[in-house]
Amino acid sequence: MNKIILASASPRRQELLTQIGMEFKVIPSGMEEVPQSRQPEDVVMELSKGKAEDVFESLPKEEKEITLVIGADTIVAYKGRIIGKPDSRENAQEILSCLQGGIHQVYTGVTLIWQAGEKISFYEKTDVEMYPMSMEEIKRYVDTGEPVDKAGAYGIQGKGAAYIKEIRGDYNNVVGLPVGRLYQEMKKHFLL
Amino acid sequence: MNKIILASASPRRQELLTQIGMEFKVIPSGMEEVPQSRQPEDVVMELSKGKAEDVFESLPKEEKEITLVIGADTIVAYKGRIIGKPDSRENAQEILSCLQGGIHQVYTGVTLIWQAGEKISFYEKTDVEMYPMSMEEIKRYVDTGEPVDKAGAYGIQGKGAAYIKEIRGDYNNVVGLPVGRLYQEMKKHFLL
Repeated sequence: MNKIILASASPRRQELLTQIGMEFKVIPSGMEEVPQSRQPEDVVMELSKGKAEDVFESLPKEEKEITLVIGADTIVAYKGRIIGKPDSRENAQEILSCLQGGIHQVYTGVTLIWQAGEKISFYEKTDVEMYPMSMEEIKRYVDTGEPVDKAGAYGIQGKGAAYIKEIRGDYNNVVGLPVGRLYQEMKKHFLL
Repeated sequence: MNKIILASASPRRQELLTQIGMEFKVIPSGMEEVPQSRQPEDVVMELSKGKAEDVFESLPKEEKEITLVIGADTIVAYKGRIIGKPDSRENAQEILSCLQGGIHQVYTGVTLIWQAGEKISFYEKTDVEMYPMSMEEIKRYVDTGEPVDKAGAYGIQGKGAAYIKEIRGDYNNVVGLPVGRLYQEMKKHFLL
Protein backbone atom coordinates (compact mmCIF):
# COMPACT_ATOMS: atom_id res chain seq x y z
CA MET A 1 0.00 0.00 0.00
CA ASN A 2 1.38 3.37 -0.97
CA LYS A 3 -1.38 5.39 0.58
CA ILE A 4 -3.62 5.12 3.61
CA ILE A 5 -6.91 7.01 3.90
CA LEU A 6 -8.82 7.31 7.15
CA ALA A 7 -12.53 7.66 6.34
CA SER A 8 -13.31 9.50 9.57
CA ALA A 9 -13.43 13.11 10.70
CA SER A 10 -12.80 12.14 14.35
CA PRO A 11 -9.73 13.99 15.65
CA ARG A 12 -9.26 11.25 18.24
CA ARG A 13 -8.94 8.56 15.55
CA GLN A 14 -6.48 10.72 13.66
CA GLU A 15 -4.39 11.20 16.82
CA LEU A 16 -4.32 7.46 17.46
CA LEU A 17 -3.12 6.60 13.94
CA THR A 18 -0.47 9.30 14.24
CA GLN A 19 0.52 7.98 17.67
CA ILE A 20 1.50 4.59 16.26
CA GLY A 21 3.50 6.24 13.50
CA MET A 22 1.18 5.89 10.48
CA GLU A 23 1.11 8.36 7.64
CA PHE A 24 -2.33 8.88 6.18
CA LYS A 25 -4.76 11.28 4.60
CA VAL A 26 -8.23 12.03 5.96
CA ILE A 27 -11.32 11.84 3.74
CA PRO A 28 -14.38 11.76 5.99
CA SER A 29 -17.35 9.80 4.77
CA GLY A 30 -20.54 11.85 4.72
CA MET A 31 -22.55 8.66 5.12
CA GLU A 32 -25.38 8.70 7.66
CA GLU A 33 -26.52 5.13 7.37
CA VAL A 34 -29.29 3.53 9.41
CA PRO A 35 -27.93 0.09 10.28
CA GLN A 36 -29.81 -3.07 9.35
CA SER A 37 -28.07 -5.03 12.11
CA ARG A 38 -29.27 -5.22 15.71
CA GLN A 39 -26.34 -6.66 17.68
CA PRO A 40 -23.77 -4.04 18.74
CA GLU A 41 -20.84 -5.89 17.13
CA ASP A 42 -22.74 -6.23 13.83
CA VAL A 43 -23.85 -2.59 13.91
CA VAL A 44 -20.31 -1.21 14.27
CA MET A 45 -18.93 -3.49 11.54
CA GLU A 46 -21.79 -2.59 9.20
CA LEU A 47 -21.37 1.15 9.78
CA SER A 48 -17.55 1.01 9.47
CA LYS A 49 -18.00 -0.86 6.19
CA GLY A 50 -20.47 1.71 4.89
CA LYS A 51 -18.03 4.54 5.60
CA ALA A 52 -15.01 2.74 4.10
CA GLU A 53 -16.94 1.72 0.96
CA ASP A 54 -18.31 5.24 0.53
CA VAL A 55 -14.80 6.74 0.48
CA PHE A 56 -13.21 3.90 -1.53
CA GLU A 57 -15.86 4.21 -4.26
CA SER A 58 -15.20 7.94 -4.56
CA LEU A 59 -11.53 7.34 -5.52
CA PRO A 60 -10.33 7.44 -9.15
CA LYS A 61 -9.51 3.97 -10.55
CA GLU A 62 -5.74 4.41 -10.44
CA GLU A 63 -5.91 5.55 -6.80
CA LYS A 64 -7.89 2.45 -5.83
CA GLU A 65 -4.97 0.25 -6.80
CA ILE A 66 -2.53 1.80 -4.38
CA THR A 67 -4.78 2.84 -1.50
CA LEU A 68 -5.97 1.31 1.75
CA VAL A 69 -9.13 2.88 3.20
CA ILE A 70 -9.88 2.53 6.91
CA GLY A 71 -13.43 3.04 8.20
CA ALA A 72 -14.44 2.87 11.86
CA ASP A 73 -17.51 3.22 14.04
CA THR A 74 -17.86 3.19 17.84
CA ILE A 75 -20.90 2.63 20.03
CA VAL A 76 -21.62 2.05 23.71
CA ALA A 77 -23.92 -0.69 24.94
CA TYR A 78 -25.37 -1.25 28.39
CA LYS A 79 -27.14 -4.50 29.24
CA GLY A 80 -27.28 -5.29 25.52
CA ARG A 81 -28.98 -1.98 24.65
CA ILE A 82 -27.19 0.50 22.38
CA ILE A 83 -26.62 3.92 23.98
CA GLY A 84 -26.31 6.81 21.53
CA LYS A 85 -24.55 10.13 21.72
CA PRO A 86 -26.40 12.61 23.95
CA ASP A 87 -28.60 15.08 22.08
CA SER A 88 -28.91 17.53 24.98
CA ARG A 89 -27.50 18.29 28.42
CA GLU A 90 -30.43 16.55 30.05
CA ASN A 91 -29.86 13.48 27.91
CA ALA A 92 -26.15 13.43 28.82
CA GLN A 93 -27.16 13.46 32.50
CA GLU A 94 -29.58 10.60 31.93
CA ILE A 95 -26.95 8.50 30.14
CA LEU A 96 -24.34 9.08 32.85
CA SER A 97 -26.86 8.35 35.62
CA CYS A 98 -27.62 5.09 33.90
CA LEU A 99 -23.96 4.06 33.37
CA GLN A 100 -22.48 5.19 36.74
CA GLY A 101 -21.35 2.49 39.12
CA GLY A 102 -21.85 -0.28 36.56
CA ILE A 103 -20.05 -2.05 33.70
CA HIS A 104 -20.86 -1.19 30.10
CA GLN A 105 -19.39 -2.23 26.77
CA VAL A 106 -17.71 -0.17 24.08
CA TYR A 107 -17.61 -1.64 20.57
CA THR A 108 -15.54 -0.31 17.70
CA GLY A 109 -15.90 -1.87 14.27
CA VAL A 110 -13.21 -1.38 11.66
CA THR A 111 -13.28 -2.08 7.92
CA LEU A 112 -10.23 -2.13 5.65
CA ILE A 113 -10.71 -1.93 1.87
CA TRP A 114 -7.91 -2.09 -0.65
CA GLN A 115 -7.17 -2.80 -4.31
CA ALA A 116 -9.99 -4.29 -6.34
CA GLY A 117 -12.35 -3.99 -3.41
CA GLU A 118 -10.77 -6.58 -1.11
CA LYS A 119 -12.09 -5.99 2.34
CA ILE A 120 -12.07 -7.19 5.92
CA SER A 121 -14.15 -6.10 8.89
CA PHE A 122 -13.50 -6.80 12.56
CA TYR A 123 -14.52 -5.41 15.91
CA GLU A 124 -13.12 -5.12 19.40
CA LYS A 125 -15.14 -5.00 22.61
CA THR A 126 -13.94 -3.34 25.81
CA ASP A 127 -15.70 -3.59 29.17
CA VAL A 128 -15.65 -0.34 31.12
CA GLU A 129 -16.47 -0.08 34.83
CA MET A 130 -17.32 3.36 36.18
CA TYR A 131 -17.11 4.61 39.75
CA PRO A 132 -20.37 5.73 41.33
CA MET A 133 -21.10 9.41 40.60
CA SER A 134 -23.34 11.71 42.60
CA MET A 135 -25.95 13.78 40.75
CA GLU A 136 -23.84 16.84 41.53
CA GLU A 137 -20.74 15.25 40.00
CA ILE A 138 -22.70 14.27 36.91
CA LYS A 139 -24.00 17.83 36.52
CA ARG A 140 -20.56 19.32 37.06
CA TYR A 141 -19.09 16.94 34.46
CA VAL A 142 -21.83 17.66 31.92
CA ASP A 143 -21.18 21.39 32.48
CA THR A 144 -17.60 20.95 31.21
CA GLY A 145 -19.12 20.28 27.76
CA GLU A 146 -17.03 17.14 27.32
CA PRO A 147 -19.96 14.65 27.03
CA VAL A 148 -21.60 16.43 24.08
CA ASP A 149 -20.27 14.51 21.07
CA LYS A 150 -19.24 11.30 22.84
CA ALA A 151 -20.82 7.85 22.68
CA GLY A 152 -21.84 7.06 26.27
CA ALA A 153 -21.62 10.77 27.19
CA TYR A 154 -18.05 10.64 28.51
CA GLY A 155 -14.49 11.03 27.24
CA ILE A 156 -12.15 8.44 28.74
CA GLN A 157 -9.20 10.42 27.33
CA GLY A 158 -10.42 13.61 29.02
CA LYS A 159 -11.84 14.58 32.40
CA GLY A 160 -13.95 11.42 32.26
CA ALA A 161 -10.83 9.47 33.32
CA ALA A 162 -11.54 10.49 36.93
CA TYR A 163 -14.70 8.34 36.89
CA ILE A 164 -13.30 5.17 35.29
CA LYS A 165 -12.49 2.34 37.71
CA GLU A 166 -11.17 -0.24 35.31
CA ILE A 167 -11.42 -1.50 31.78
CA ARG A 168 -10.98 -4.91 30.24
CA GLY A 169 -9.85 -4.87 26.63
CA ASP A 170 -8.13 -2.30 24.44
CA TYR A 171 -8.19 1.24 25.88
CA ASN A 172 -7.88 2.85 22.46
CA ASN A 173 -10.98 0.96 21.38
CA VAL A 174 -12.87 3.12 23.89
CA VAL A 175 -11.20 6.26 22.54
CA GLY A 176 -12.41 5.25 19.05
CA LEU A 177 -9.88 3.07 17.22
CA PRO A 178 -8.35 -0.25 18.39
CA VAL A 179 -4.87 0.49 17.04
CA GLY A 180 -3.36 -2.70 18.48
CA ARG A 181 -5.70 -4.98 16.54
CA LEU A 182 -5.60 -2.65 13.52
CA TYR A 183 -1.81 -2.84 13.38
CA GLN A 184 -1.91 -6.63 13.71
CA GLU A 185 -4.43 -6.94 10.86
CA MET A 186 -2.36 -4.66 8.63
CA LYS A 187 0.74 -6.69 9.45
CA LYS A 188 -1.07 -9.89 8.49
CA HIS A 189 -2.44 -8.57 5.19
CA PHE A 190 0.30 -6.22 4.05
CA LEU A 191 3.42 -7.65 5.72
CA LEU A 192 4.32 -4.36 7.41
CA MET B 1 -6.57 22.07 50.37
CA ASN B 2 -5.51 25.32 48.78
CA LYS B 3 -2.51 23.95 46.99
CA ILE B 4 -1.56 20.69 45.35
CA ILE B 5 2.05 19.68 44.73
CA LEU B 6 3.02 16.78 42.48
CA ALA B 7 6.33 15.35 43.72
CA SER B 8 7.28 13.97 40.30
CA ALA B 9 9.19 15.21 37.28
CA SER B 10 7.33 12.82 34.96
CA PRO B 11 5.66 14.79 32.14
CA ARG B 12 3.16 11.96 31.75
CA ARG B 13 1.97 12.29 35.35
CA GLN B 14 1.68 16.05 34.92
CA GLU B 15 -0.41 15.57 31.77
CA LEU B 16 -2.74 13.15 33.54
CA LEU B 17 -3.41 15.50 36.46
CA THR B 18 -4.02 18.32 34.01
CA GLN B 19 -6.32 16.06 31.98
CA ILE B 20 -8.72 15.60 34.91
CA GLY B 21 -8.74 19.33 35.54
CA MET B 22 -6.45 19.65 38.57
CA GLU B 23 -4.35 22.71 39.25
CA PHE B 24 -1.00 21.93 40.81
CA LYS B 25 2.64 22.84 41.11
CA VAL B 26 5.50 20.45 40.39
CA ILE B 27 8.33 19.94 42.90
CA PRO B 28 10.20 16.79 41.89
CA SER B 29 11.72 14.74 44.70
CA GLY B 30 15.43 14.11 44.20
CA MET B 31 15.09 10.94 46.27
CA GLU B 32 16.80 7.82 44.92
CA GLU B 33 15.73 5.37 47.57
CA VAL B 34 16.57 1.67 47.61
CA PRO B 35 13.34 0.00 48.72
CA GLN B 36 13.24 -2.25 51.78
CA SER B 37 10.14 -4.03 50.50
CA ARG B 38 10.17 -6.99 48.12
CA GLN B 39 6.61 -7.32 46.86
CA PRO B 40 5.82 -5.06 43.88
CA GLU B 41 2.80 -3.43 45.59
CA ASP B 42 4.85 -2.69 48.73
CA VAL B 43 7.78 -1.36 46.70
CA VAL B 44 5.68 1.20 44.81
CA MET B 45 3.89 2.37 47.95
CA GLU B 46 7.19 2.68 49.83
CA LEU B 47 8.85 4.64 47.01
CA SER B 48 5.83 6.91 46.49
CA LYS B 49 5.84 7.63 50.23
CA GLY B 50 9.57 8.43 50.20
CA LYS B 51 9.06 10.95 47.39
CA ALA B 52 5.99 12.59 48.96
CA GLU B 53 7.64 12.84 52.41
CA ASP B 54 10.82 14.27 50.91
CA VAL B 55 8.89 17.11 49.25
CA PHE B 56 6.46 17.66 52.15
CA GLU B 57 9.35 18.01 54.63
CA SER B 58 11.02 20.61 52.43
CA LEU B 59 7.99 22.95 52.72
CA PRO B 60 7.89 25.91 55.14
CA LYS B 61 5.59 25.29 58.13
CA GLU B 62 2.81 27.63 56.93
CA GLU B 63 2.79 25.95 53.51
CA LYS B 64 2.36 22.52 55.09
CA GLU B 65 -0.97 23.55 56.53
CA ILE B 66 -2.55 24.32 53.19
CA THR B 67 -0.82 21.88 50.87
CA LEU B 68 -1.47 18.37 49.60
CA VAL B 69 1.61 16.55 48.26
CA ILE B 70 1.19 13.67 45.80
CA GLY B 71 4.02 11.16 45.31
CA ALA B 72 3.90 8.25 42.84
CA ASP B 73 6.05 5.39 41.66
CA THR B 74 5.47 2.87 38.85
CA ILE B 75 7.07 -0.52 38.20
CA VAL B 76 6.49 -3.46 35.91
CA ALA B 77 6.49 -7.05 37.17
CA TYR B 78 6.54 -10.28 35.19
CA LYS B 79 5.89 -13.61 36.89
CA GLY B 80 6.38 -11.88 40.25
CA ARG B 81 9.79 -10.47 39.31
CA ILE B 82 10.29 -6.71 39.12
CA ILE B 83 11.44 -5.46 35.69
CA GLY B 84 13.39 -2.19 35.75
CA LYS B 85 13.86 0.53 33.18
CA PRO B 86 16.22 -0.51 30.39
CA ASP B 87 19.80 0.75 30.81
CA SER B 88 20.78 0.17 27.17
CA ARG B 89 19.32 -0.70 23.76
CA GLU B 90 20.31 -4.34 24.24
CA ASN B 91 18.59 -4.40 27.61
CA ALA B 92 15.42 -2.86 26.12
CA GLN B 93 15.41 -5.65 23.51
CA GLU B 94 15.81 -8.28 26.24
CA ILE B 95 12.94 -6.85 28.28
CA LEU B 96 10.60 -6.69 25.27
CA SER B 97 11.57 -10.23 24.18
CA CYS B 98 10.68 -11.41 27.65
CA LEU B 99 7.32 -9.58 27.86
CA GLN B 100 6.05 -10.17 24.28
CA GLY B 101 3.07 -12.45 23.83
CA GLY B 102 2.47 -12.69 27.59
CA ILE B 103 0.68 -10.92 30.45
CA HIS B 104 2.62 -8.72 32.85
CA GLN B 105 1.59 -6.43 35.69
CA VAL B 106 2.04 -2.70 36.11
CA TYR B 107 1.90 -1.32 39.66
CA THR B 108 1.66 2.33 40.57
CA GLY B 109 1.84 3.35 44.22
CA VAL B 110 0.54 6.74 45.31
CA THR B 111 1.02 8.57 48.61
CA LEU B 112 -0.90 11.68 49.67
CA ILE B 113 0.41 13.80 52.55
CA TRP B 114 -1.34 16.87 53.94
CA GLN B 115 -1.55 19.10 56.99
CA ALA B 116 0.28 17.92 60.08
CA GLY B 117 1.70 14.97 58.17
CA GLU B 118 -1.55 13.03 57.67
CA LYS B 119 -0.90 10.50 54.94
CA ILE B 120 -2.39 7.66 52.97
CA SER B 121 -0.78 5.27 50.50
CA PHE B 122 -2.51 3.03 47.99
CA TYR B 123 -1.66 1.18 44.81
CA GLU B 124 -3.36 0.02 41.66
CA LYS B 125 -2.42 -3.02 39.60
CA THR B 126 -3.12 -3.36 35.88
CA ASP B 127 -2.62 -6.55 33.87
CA VAL B 128 -1.24 -5.91 30.38
CA GLU B 129 -1.28 -8.48 27.58
CA MET B 130 1.07 -7.86 24.65
CA TYR B 131 0.80 -9.23 21.12
CA PRO B 132 3.67 -11.44 19.97
CA MET B 133 6.50 -9.38 18.44
CA SER B 134 9.14 -10.61 16.02
CA MET B 135 12.79 -9.83 16.78
CA GLU B 136 12.71 -7.41 13.84
CA GLU B 137 9.69 -5.58 15.27
CA ILE B 138 11.37 -5.35 18.66
CA LYS B 139 14.52 -3.90 17.08
CA ARG B 140 12.51 -1.44 15.00
CA TYR B 141 10.57 -0.35 18.09
CA VAL B 142 13.72 0.04 20.21
CA ASP B 143 15.21 2.14 17.38
CA THR B 144 12.39 4.70 17.81
CA GLY B 145 13.98 5.57 21.17
CA GLU B 146 10.64 5.30 22.96
CA PRO B 147 11.59 2.42 25.34
CA VAL B 148 14.58 4.26 26.89
CA ASP B 149 13.11 5.79 30.04
CA LYS B 150 10.07 3.52 30.43
CA ALA B 151 9.39 0.81 33.00
CA GLY B 152 8.95 -2.38 30.95
CA ALA B 153 10.68 -0.76 27.96
CA TYR B 154 7.49 0.39 26.24
CA GLY B 155 5.17 3.40 26.18
CA ILE B 156 1.51 2.40 26.09
CA GLN B 157 0.62 6.03 25.30
CA GLY B 158 3.03 6.08 22.34
CA LYS B 159 3.95 3.75 19.47
CA GLY B 160 3.86 0.89 21.98
CA ALA B 161 0.04 0.94 21.66
CA ALA B 162 0.38 -1.09 18.44
CA TYR B 163 1.64 -4.06 20.49
CA ILE B 164 -0.91 -4.04 23.33
CA LYS B 165 -3.69 -6.61 23.04
CA GLU B 166 -5.67 -5.84 26.15
CA ILE B 167 -5.41 -4.54 29.65
CA ARG B 168 -7.37 -5.23 32.78
CA GLY B 169 -7.42 -2.38 35.27
CA ASP B 170 -6.82 1.34 34.98
CA TYR B 171 -5.09 2.40 31.76
CA ASN B 172 -3.65 5.55 33.32
CA ASN B 173 -2.05 3.40 35.98
CA VAL B 174 0.12 1.99 33.18
CA VAL B 175 0.89 5.50 31.92
CA GLY B 176 2.05 6.37 35.46
CA LEU B 177 -0.79 7.71 37.62
CA PRO B 178 -4.15 6.03 38.41
CA VAL B 179 -6.18 9.23 38.21
CA GLY B 180 -9.52 7.45 38.70
CA ARG B 181 -8.53 6.05 42.11
CA LEU B 182 -6.60 9.23 42.96
CA TYR B 183 -9.69 11.36 42.34
CA GLN B 184 -11.84 9.01 44.42
CA GLU B 185 -9.39 9.14 47.34
CA MET B 186 -9.24 12.93 47.18
CA LYS B 187 -13.03 13.07 47.10
CA LYS B 188 -13.19 10.86 50.20
CA HIS B 189 -10.64 12.82 52.20
CA PHE B 190 -11.20 16.37 51.01
CA LEU B 191 -14.86 16.35 49.91
CA LEU B 192 -14.07 17.66 46.42
